Amino acid sequence: MKTKISVSEKKKEVLENLRNFGARLYGQMEEGAFPWIKMPSRSIQNIFYSPEVRQYILGDKAVRRSSRNIRHIRPFTQLVWAAYFAYELAKNRKTSTLRDVYYSAQAFDVAFKDQPESNSIITDLETVVGFAREDFNVFPEERSAIFGDLTIEYTVRGYEGRQYNLMSHPDGVMIGPAITSAEFVKTSTDMVIAIEKGGLFTRFIEEEVHKKFNALLVLLGGQAPRASRHFIYRLNKELELPVHIFTDGDPWGMHIAMVIISGSANAAHLRDLTTPDARWSGVWATDIVDYRLPSDELTPVDIKRLYELQKDPRYKGDLWQKEIKKFLKIRKKAEQEAFSRYGLTYIVDKYLPEKLKEVA
Amino acid sequence: MKTKISVSEKKKEVLENLRNFGARLYGQMEEGAFPWIKMPSRSIQNIFYSPEVRQYILGDKAVRRSSRNIRHIRPFTQLVWAAYFAYELAKNRKTSTLRDVYYSAQAFDVAFKDQPESNSIITDLETVVGFAREDFNVFPEERSAIFGDLTIEYTVRGYEGRQYNLMSHPDGVMIGPAITSAEFVKTSTDMVIAIEKGGLFTRFIEEEVHKKFNALLVLLGGQAPRASRHFIYRLNKELELPVHIFTDGDPWGMHIAMVIISGSANAAHLRDLTTPDARWSGVWATDIVDYRLPSDELTPVDIKRLYELQKDPRYKGDLWQKEIKKFLKIRKKAEQEAFSRYGLTYIVDKYLPEKLKEVA
Repeated sequence: MKTKISVSEKKKEVLENLRNFGARLYGQMEEGAFPWIKMPSRSIQNIFYSPEVRQYILGDKAVRRSSRNIRHIRPFTQLVWAAYFAYELAKNRKTSTLRDVYYSAQAFDVAFKDQPESNSIITDLETVVGFAREDFNVFPEERSAIFGDLTIEYTVRGYEGRQYNLMSHPDGVMIGPAITSAEFVKTSTDMVIAIEKGGLFTRFIEEEVHKKFNALLVLLGGQAPRASRHFIYRLNKELELPVHIFTDGDPWGMHIAMVIISGSANAAHLRDLTTPDARWSGVWATDIVDYRLPSDELTPVDIKRLYELQKDPRYKGDLWQKEIKKFLKIRKKAEQEAFSRYGLTYIVDKYLPEKLKEVA
Repeated sequence: MKTKISVSEKKKEVLENLRNFGARLYGQMEEGAFPWIKMPSRSIQNIFYSPEVRQYILGDKAVRRSSRNIRHIRPFTQLVWAAYFAYELAKNRKTSTLRDVYYSAQAFDVAFKDQPESNSIITDLETVVGFAREDFNVFPEERSAIFGDLTIEYTVRGYEGRQYNLMSHPDGVMIGPAITSAEFVKTSTDMVIAIEKGGLFTRFIEEEVHKKFNALLVLLGGQAPRASRHFIYRLNKELELPVHIFTDGDPWGMHIAMVIISGSANAAHLRDLTTPDARWSGVWATDIVDYRLPSDELTPVDIKRLYELQKDPRYKGDLWQKEIKKFLKIRKKAEQEAFSRYGLTYIVDKYLPEKLKEVA
C-alpha cells in the first residue's frame, strides 16, 4: 500500500477542523466583532472543470457571511448549529442521515423550513470544513455492497481492532458507515470490478470472477452513493488497484461510470470522491454492434442526454466521444444482461476477458 | 427450532416437480395426445382473500393449455422452455434474474416479444410447479440486508457446509441467493426487527438494539423483495421468532408491513412468502399524536390510498382500521426519522421499548 490514508488520522483532522471553526468564531467575538465566515462560492459561475485535477473544482470567488447582516443571521446560526451537531456525531462516533439532521435541529429550536434548506447548510459545512459530510458521519440512505479477498479492520464502536475478510459472505457485505471507516489490512487481489446491477454482481460471484480475475467485486446498485465512490477511491489509491466499471450500454450507464471517475459539479468543493484512473469497461455502443447484442431503441430522452454528455467537459476523452457518436449513429442501447443471449456464462467466459485485455 | 424447513429437501422437491412436469408431457405424447397442461387460473375472478390462510389464494377455476390449440402453441412452448431453463438453473445451482430469462430465451430461438411476456410465463411456471421463482433460482435485482446473532450454514457452490455468524459485519450482510438458501444453525435472539430505511438500520446497530432487545435486524430498503419476505417467513417459522416491522407513518409504510404480513394478490398462487403473525409496530398515526412528532400534510394521493386500504380485506383487523381512521382524521404523516426531534437515541431508548410492550 503506497498512499496509506489512515482513517483515524482523518477523523482527527475532521474534528480539528470543526473545532477550529468554532474557535475562530469565539476569537472574533473576543475581539468585539460580530462573528463571520468566509468560504468558497458554490455558485455555478464559480464551478470549473479542471483537466489537472480531473474533476470539477471551485474557483477563487468567495462568499462572506456575517452575523452582523440581518439577512445572514439565519443561515449563519444554522451553520453553527450544524457544525456543533456534526462535531457531536463525529466525536461520539454516531452516524446519521440528512433526514435526521433536519429533524434533529428541532430539538435545538433551530428552524429549517424544509429538507432542501438543511441539506444546503450541510453542503456549506462541507465547504467550510473541507470534508465530505460522510466524514462527519452524515450518511446517505443508499447502500452498495462488496465481495472479495480484502481483509479490513473495523474502527466503529464495539468492533475496534476486529479484522474480517470480505469473502466470508457470498451475497456480499453492505458498504455502510462501518466498512467505509475501516482500515485496509491486506488483499491478494489485482483489480476492482464495479458492477451496476445486483443480478450480474451475483452472477460474477457464482462464476468466480473474484478468483478467475483476482478481483474485488463492488455492487453499485445504480448511481453509486457518495460513500461508495469514496470507498472505490480508497481501493484505487491505498491498494493501487485498477478499477473497471461495468454498466448498461446507454447514456445513464455511461454516466454512472463517469460520476465515479470524474465526480459531479455539485461536489466541486470536495476531493477524494473521484477515481480519475478508473475505466468504463462496457457495455459500449461498439459492443452492441461487435457482439450483436439484443438491444432497444434509444428514446428521445436518451438521445437528448447523449447530446448533453457530448458537450460535457468530463466527456472530452476519445473513448467517450467515440462511444457517444456510436450510440447516436446506431440509435440503440443494451443492458448488461443482454449477453445472456449467448448463455449465462458468456459474459464471464468471453466478454470480460476480451474487454479487460482491450482496455489494459 | 420447531418447523425445520430443510433447504436441500426443498431444492429436491423443486427439481422433482419440474421433472414431473416434463414427464407428464412425455407421457401424453406416448399416449398419442397433444401435450397439454392444466393449472389454476390467476385471473382476478379467481383470487380470494382467505381469512384462514390469512393471505390471498386462488379459487377452483383452472385453465387448460394445449399444444393442439393454435393460439396456445406459443405460450405452451414458452412455458416448456422456461421449465427446462429453470431446471438447468436449479440443478447447476446457478441464479439468474427475470431480465436474464428474457434474454436467455433468444439463445434457444424461443421468442418473447417483451419483458412482460416472459415475466408472465415465469409466473405460469410458479403456478404449475407450486414454488416461487426464487426456488428455481430466478432472483430479483433488489437486495435487503441482515445483522445479528444468527449462525447460518451456506449451501451455495464453493461454500457448502461453511458456517458464519451474521454479526461479523456491522453494516449488515446482503440478503441474496446465498443467504436465502442457507440453513439456520443457531441463534440466541428473541425477535426480528425489520426496518424500512437504511439510516435507521444503521442507527439500531450503533445503539446496539441487537443486544438491548436481543434482536435480529433486517433492513427492508422500502418494499421488501420477495426473497426477503420468504427469509422473514423462515425466521418466524423455523426459529419461532416474533417479527416486528418498523416503517414510516404513512399509507405506503403501512403497506410495506402488510405485504410482509399478508402478501399481495399477484402472489396468490404461492405460499411461504407471508408472515401472518408479524406485527406492524409503527410509526402509527396515533404515534404522531402521542409523541407529537414533526409531520407533513397527507397529499391527495396519500388520502386516496388510505381509502383504498380501508376497503382492502387484508386491512380488516382493528389496529389497521383504527390507524387508517386516525390518519384520515389528523391528515398527517411522519417519517421514522421524525423521532430525532427528541435526540438521535430517543427512538431506541424510549419509543422502541414502549412500542414492543404495547404490541406484546
